[in-house]
Amino acid sequence: MESEGRLSVLALGGVFEIGKNMYVVQYNDNLIVIDCGSKFPVESLLGIDLIIPDIGFLLQNKHKVSALVITHGHEDHIGGIPYFLKQLNIPVYATKLTLGLIELKLKEHRLKKPELYEITPASELAFGELKLSFFRTNHSIPDCLGIVIDTPAGRVVHTGDFKFDLSPSNGQVPDIHKMARIGEEGVLLLLSESTNAERSGFTPSERLVGEKIMEAFQKADYRIFLSTFASNVSRLQQVIDAAVHTHRKLALLGRSMINVVKVALEQGYLSMPEGMLIEAKEASELPREAVAVLCTGSQGESMAALSRLASGRHPHIEILPQDTVILASSPIPGNERNVAAVLDGLYLRGANVIHGSGSATGMHVSGHGSQEELKLMLSLMKPRYFVPIHGEYRMLAQHKKLAESVGVDSGNIYILRNGDVLDVVRENNRYDVTQSRKVAAGNTLVDGLGIGDVGSVVLRDRRHLAEDGIFIVVATLSSNERSLLSGPDIITRGFVHVKEAEALLSELNEKIKADILTLLDAEHREWSVFKHKIRETSARLIFTRLGRRPMILPVIIEV
Amino acid sequence: MESEGRLSVLALGGVFEIGKNMYVVQYNDNLIVIDCGSKFPVESLLGIDLIIPDIGFLLQNKHKVSALVITHGHEDHIGGIPYFLKQLNIPVYATKLTLGLIELKLKEHRLKKPELYEITPASELAFGELKLSFFRTNHSIPDCLGIVIDTPAGRVVHTGDFKFDLSPSNGQVPDIHKMARIGEEGVLLLLSESTNAERSGFTPSERLVGEKIMEAFQKADYRIFLSTFASNVSRLQQVIDAAVHTHRKLALLGRSMINVVKVALEQGYLSMPEGMLIEAKEASELPREAVAVLCTGSQGESMAALSRLASGRHPHIEILPQDTVILASSPIPGNERNVAAVLDGLYLRGANVIHGSGSATGMHVSGHGSQEELKLMLSLMKPRYFVPIHGEYRMLAQHKKLAESVGVDSGNIYILRNGDVLDVVRENNRYDVTQSRKVAAGNTLVDGLGIGDVGSVVLRDRRHLAEDGIFIVVATLSSNERSLLSGPDIITRGFVHVKEAEALLSELNEKIKADILTLLDAEHREWSVFKHKIRETSARLIFTRLGRRPMILPVIIEV
Repeated sequence: MESEGRLSVLALGGVFEIGKNMYVVQYNDNLIVIDCGSKFPVESLLGIDLIIPDIGFLLQNKHKVSALVITHGHEDHIGGIPYFLKQLNIPVYATKLTLGLIELKLKEHRLKKPELYEITPASELAFGELKLSFFRTNHSIPDCLGIVIDTPAGRVVHTGDFKFDLSPSNGQVPDIHKMARIGEEGVLLLLSESTNAERSGFTPSERLVGEKIMEAFQKADYRIFLSTFASNVSRLQQVIDAAVHTHRKLALLGRSMINVVKVALEQGYLSMPEGMLIEAKEASELPREAVAVLCTGSQGESMAALSRLASGRHPHIEILPQDTVILASSPIPGNERNVAAVLDGLYLRGANVIHGSGSATGMHVSGHGSQEELKLMLSLMKPRYFVPIHGEYRMLAQHKKLAESVGVDSGNIYILRNGDVLDVVRENNRYDVTQSRKVAAGNTLVDGLGIGDVGSVVLRDRRHLAEDGIFIVVATLSSNERSLLSGPDIITRGFVHVKEAEALLSELNEKIKADILTLLDAEHREWSVFKHKIRETSARLIFTRLGRRPMILPVIIEV
Repeated sequence: MESEGRLSVLALGGVFEIGKNMYVVQYNDNLIVIDCGSKFPVESLLGIDLIIPDIGFLLQNKHKVSALVITHGHEDHIGGIPYFLKQLNIPVYATKLTLGLIELKLKEHRLKKPELYEITPASELAFGELKLSFFRTNHSIPDCLGIVIDTPAGRVVHTGDFKFDLSPSNGQVPDIHKMARIGEEGVLLLLSESTNAERSGFTPSERLVGEKIMEAFQKADYRIFLSTFASNVSRLQQVIDAAVHTHRKLALLGRSMINVVKVALEQGYLSMPEGMLIEAKEASELPREAVAVLCTGSQGESMAALSRLASGRHPHIEILPQDTVILASSPIPGNERNVAAVLDGLYLRGANVIHGSGSATGMHVSGHGSQEELKLMLSLMKPRYFVPIHGEYRMLAQHKKLAESVGVDSGNIYILRNGDVLDVVRENNRYDVTQSRKVAAGNTLVDGLGIGDVGSVVLRDRRHLAEDGIFIVVATLSSNERSLLSGPDIITRGFVHVKEAEALLSELNEKIKADILTLLDAEHREWSVFKHKIRETSARLIFTRLGRRPMILPVIIEV
């Protein structure tokens, strides 16, 4: 088979970071996009609600984009879709549950008539010379897919997020046989996820968590509150099973919990006896041993249900001494302090608290495969070329080592940054692989309804304002009469308790007034000179006295 | 022995939190203060540099305060001293190394003539009816003390921070025999630290870290960079020993590292061969196998040496591929994400990175005793009453359980919040113990040179500014002529890219102008009405279009 076409693979998000996954596979003038995730901003991105991939490259190549294919329904894979579709309306392909979660999102954004298509692991799609097929994997949400993209240059496989849970509680076993066939037929290039590349061994089965939850339910004498990721539908089912077994009714707290359970019940991913669900208010009225509560907030999010419960701010239900609270989760890096604050509140209420992963409590297992599972995927796929994806650099680097250990040629492994393009051209049976092109890639910041209208200057100002506040001087001058008509007036916000700084503020006022009067007498009067002088005088005195550098904003009005 | 006096014990900081330790022991009109720490603000305290205890209670009782006694030289025990002494100049007692570290701090604050007194574990002090003696403990800094306060009502013991490292690398073994005697003579009330009350077992010896460091040094082929807390002098000595053993010169990076090593060398807590220390510049010129670097930044602090090295921002030295980088530390909750970012940078430079505590790398052990050690302290002291200190609520609650397990009467254990006073009055051999009084206690915020002049209003404004910036409208009106002389001018900072919002801003300008003209025509003109209208018009349009709520500041000038 001959080919003169060019196969290109790149990430627009998801490498050198955790979050906002977006990968592109292109063959000549035809490309598909895999996943469209979001991630949460670090604290220094003040006021930013969400980060999504910069899709400038796709907008420039609009006519080439055939489809957006989604591997599964987690935020870091679907969170960017509403923003994406507002700019580029192309068909979206995903499994049933994933589509259900996407539809919830699109409804919130009031997006009209998106083109959504349901697929299954057995589906086959063709976009020009790109032929897509799929294989079932498992992870911490049902209905996950790996994607096979056959191109004239060869076969590309994208794993999505996966573990090899061979005894999953929901029965969705990974399709190892299909993966083996795909590998046997020959994989040119594998993209495989790297989240747990630093973790040795094999990730435990979700079923173990179910056993621990059942034990905890059997032991509890009073109410049980359990918090976990709403999207972990298999775990929700295990909680439901434990509640049924111990004759408890179930209340749901938190918008995402209510939404996901609704979708999953409708679609048949969750099942429970008729009449089992109750409102939070009812939960307060029933005998304590007859109630279980499933709630959001396992990451210590301050506005979520668990945090409200911990601090006694929930309007309908209160945690009482000897109630059992289970955090079936482990903190995502960055959330440790918030989780600790929630735990402290729970202990203060006298709750019996069970939290954490590991053998001690076993209330959580990861949804991502550990080293042996990553090696198993590599061994099944036997790729000629390998690109580790979905992880920070050290995870990608560790995944590279794992690939080498199962026989992938070290020179055939490429670590890409977002925007780096890997080009593959086949001539006869030789492959010419280059990693030299780059396309635009980066963070697009979402603030409220604005997408990308807050950039580095605005953020620098927000940081400045956040640090020491703002110090505004307003003066009205008459240029004809060379006189100060009004002011200077000093207005501050976020700077200092005005009462405690009265002396300093009136001293500043006098100094600035003197400066203005002097400058009014001068030959050449330019407003920029006035402003400069006010800035200088204020900054110096404020820093000397208070060691602070507020933003100083002189406003000169000429009438 | 009879007594009609009242013994009172309270915390002004350090309970229901980690950090800013400050405890008070008072007998009638005589009180001593134990420790004066600081803690770092959480991110939401924008612009705040440091949190120290509110010492209003001490200022109100100035004449009763006899001494400030310091248990050891960590920031959460000494960080507030400069601010304290500025407000209340009383004598400070501490061991040699602790005093050295306090003096560094006082010099930075240019405090003149503080009264500093050196003590040893053998010292005895008397302040009226309060008799103080001490016992040696160990921790992650040398020269730590426990404090015995004998009062007419009975004996109070404050442990300071401790572990029972029976084979400490610096030879400062905890004085178990003295502790046993103190307990045998009878302890009325024990205050003991709770940091690791949730951790089972016995904290490993610092010596193990030394062995691991030595192994790593022997294996390394090129330069070694090791980062740890500068105050962990025993660990620094172990690094020096490993460098001597492997014939490496030593460079120091980071102000606190340089300061601590200087003090510790002068005072004899560290020793090294003449000529071993080199400058960072020299380190770059020597053969790579002949260099070790000790640096700050093991918590991922963005301005510290390790972070600069990881991102290639250090002016004098660069990490090269195959250099070894050791983080002899574990992240303090809240710092995980910053540490991960530093690790990523180090891996990117091709360094051989060794990090983390636990048996896998063994590069860090805690300085705080685990459950068995806390039980050992309780068993040695056999207190009648017990107050767990130094920890968040869940740690205090767990420490209470540990105390019960070694025989302390559950009803004799008191968990105090900051400001809660425990009063003990002895009559004949009966003790009357009450926990009902409260004194003022809380956080004093330090911003630059200002102490306590930033409070909730200022912080609320900073958060508002940080979130969406500021939107200022300036208009100059002539009240006589009922006319708009100038403006409205719109000035924004931290709100939106002005270029991308030009249309919105000019629409706002016109609307506000129309509002002003309408109001100028009205019968009654109050500036507050103008301001209210401007706020309303701007807020509504901005929120509709951008989903944002900047701070809106109308400035009306009347000339």
